[in-house]
Amino acid sequence: MASVFGNKSTVVVPKFTLECGFQLHSVPVAFKTWGMLNTRCNNVMVICHPFTGSADVDEWWERLLGPGRAFDTTRFFIVCMNVLGSPYGTASPLSFDPSTGMRYGPEFPPTTIRDDVRLHKLILDYLGVRSVAVVIGGSMGGMTALEWPLCFPGFVKCLIPMATCAKHSAWCIGWGEAQRQAIYSDSAFEDGYYDSQPTSGLAAARMAGLLTYRSRDSYEERFGRMLSPHPQNNRARAGRGNDRAHPMFTAQSYLLCQGAKFAAKFDANCYIHITHKMDTHDITRDRVPESLGLDEAGALAAVLATLPPNALVLSIDTDGLCLPLEQKTIAEGIPDAELVVISSLTGHDGFLVESEKINAIVVGYLRRQLGEFYEDGAMVI
Amino acid sequence: MASVFGNKSTVVVPKFTLECGFQLHSVPVAFKTWGMLNTRCNNVMVICHPFTGSADVDEWWERLLGPGRAFDTTRFFIVCMNVLGSPYGTASPLSFDPSTGMRYGPEFPPTTIRDDVRLHKLILDYLGVRSVAVVIGGSMGGMTALEWPLCFPGFVKCLIPMATCAKHSAWCIGWGEAQRQAIYSDSAFEDGYYDSQPTSGLAAARMAGLLTYRSRDSYEERFGRMLSPHPQNNRARAGRGNDRAHPMFTAQSYLLCQGAKFAAKFDANCYIHITHKMDTHDITRDRVPESLGLDEAGALAAVLATLPPNALVLSIDTDGLCLPLEQKTIAEGIPDAELVVISSLTGHDGFLVESEKINAIVVGYLRRQLGEFYEDGAMVI
Repeated sequence: MASVFGNKSTVVVPKFTLECGFQLHSVPVAFKTWGMLNTRCNNVMVICHPFTGSADVDEWWERLLGPGRAFDTTRFFIVCMNVLGSPYGTASPLSFDPSTGMRYGPEFPPTTIRDDVRLHKLILDYLGVRSVAVVIGGSMGGMTALEWPLCFPGFVKCLIPMATCAKHSAWCIGWGEAQRQAIYSDSAFEDGYYDSQPTSGLAAARMAGLLTYRSRDSYEERFGRMLSPHPQNNRARAGRGNDRAHPMFTAQSYLLCQGAKFAAKFDANCYIHITHKMDTHDITRDRVPESLGLDEAGALAAVLATLPPNALVLSIDTDGLCLPLEQKTIAEGIPDAELVVISSLTGHDGFLVESEKINAIVVGYLRRQLGEFYEDGAMVI
Repeated sequence: MASVFGNKSTVVVPKFTLECGFQLHSVPVAFKTWGMLNTRCNNVMVICHPFTGSADVDEWWERLLGPGRAFDTTRFFIVCMNVLGSPYGTASPLSFDPSTGMRYGPEFPPTTIRDDVRLHKLILDYLGVRSVAVVIGGSMGGMTALEWPLCFPGFVKCLIPMATCAKHSAWCIGWGEAQRQAIYSDSAFEDGYYDSQPTSGLAAARMAGLLTYRSRDSYEERFGRMLSPHPQNNRARAGRGNDRAHPMFTAQSYLLCQGAKFAAKFDANCYIHITHKMDTHDITRDRVPESLGLDEAGALAAVLATLPPNALVLSIDTDGLCLPLEQKTIAEGIPDAELVVISSLTGHDGFLVESEKINAIVVGYLRRQLGEFYEDGAMVI
């Protein structure tokens, strides 16, 4: 029995063939686990991270993690695995191409959400997992969660997609492109063959991204038209010439600060890579034979109907990126799924912010669906 | 009596002092007029253009212009004047600084919506206008419309602000900053002292802007996940390395195309300038003595109460930039104002797109409020 407690590891998969046909060799996969695998090897909770997240759930979803919480470390063997193309440990543009000894950079091959799921399945196999009790994830993590039972039918019992979509919308594709263009514009980007990060373009992309993750009203409540108490701190980033003669609002200085912080820890090629990955997300892709003569809605319904029943689908009512309507479609398509719309001022990022509500909803759901793991002594191995 | 028919002109104002204290000399103001001024010099309709618009209403709001339409050229003397900082004819970063003989570029001084109104008033004076029957404008044009009667009390009879705000929100300030940062990142920007446009950064900024002007659902309906039939046309703009191995969606190629078109006709310093100008917009600024002890909402109500009564305030129900709530606040504050919420899939740009609905609503309103100009023989001069 494999078991890991609160442990971060990297496993190197000898080779892995991507959907695009490219074969990667010596593929590192970073992951982190909490809790212990039971003797039946089935008390497994897979957490799928969002775009700029990592395997470190304790860093970005920490208020859901721990005894008595949604990610209950005393009941589940919790695994979070870093996706392909992310700068946080799994193979990515930052990795060294064994055939050249150089970093892949912009030549890292395109990957899909399905590639992540197939690669991560190898890690679960390595850890001795026989079946997954629940897969949970928000935003891109929700896309990954939806793909798990589709890539491995029968392997996953329960599904909790949050603030996500069955297919990446034109809106999200458009935002990804606008953000990539901000990076391409940076002189330091050098077509992706940079030595140091194109931090200015990456920060600009992040700033637009951050706005889409929040709501208009949450910005208004937090910042309004308040002026920055320390405008000089951000002047260097705020343009030149008479641009400095303009007032500096906290709505600006906050974004400037967040953009710079992000650019110091992420990677531009990884940013570009993952936004493209999300663009490929469409659970109906190559799964519905044309011979069935289904229209788009029909094809989507046909695929959703094959997902494990009784899923818990979570929406944030103010989500302007993955609209509540998209989760409603998911919930209506999955047999006996339950849709819970969380009221939040935050917008899309509500799935990260509304911990108290999400803890209560998820724990209630898991107790109903996975009662066996909530019985006394369930963890006796 | 001054009268101009379908005529584009530029008047040079000898000197003009801005709110920031800077005195501009030899200030060109581009404007266009339609129809004829009546003998009482009061059948005047002032149209205020949005951010990237110009005095050429016939180019960007053409379906509202003409006999029988909202902008009825047989009844009104219609004037549209280009704002300070715009590249379309009025003094801007593209203008030559008489003191140096060089273009102002990034050193063009900051301007406000109030500066535009005060400068434009000089043009109306020059044209012989004694009073304005109606001021109309959407988005930034709506901000200008609101400022007209505040800068010149008693001068404006009717007011039609659309898809706009009484003060620029934190949300809009944030979007402006994110877009400016995309421009600053472009190596060609050279701190604003460029010889040729930083087209890549300007296009990236425009792409983000365009998304905020539309709605998620309008993108979905128009593009969905359709692939571009001619991906090669946009490959050069779509990044390098393996980036080209990714699919090209029409949601991307549309934005790439629009971004490039815009960058070919606008100016980066002008873009930066006008976004800063909008950030200064707050009709309560310096108008409510602290001694009154009013809170923010109280101060806003106090200023709105001084606007001409019976205004027509238009909202687009899907507007994600200037929210319908913001126009509701305006309508509730202006005495006897009427709020009309237009149902549209478009989003913010609905004020430009929903011509048929807007024609009907505005003509009905003008006939009620300004019946004298709709009587037979009203145009006998």
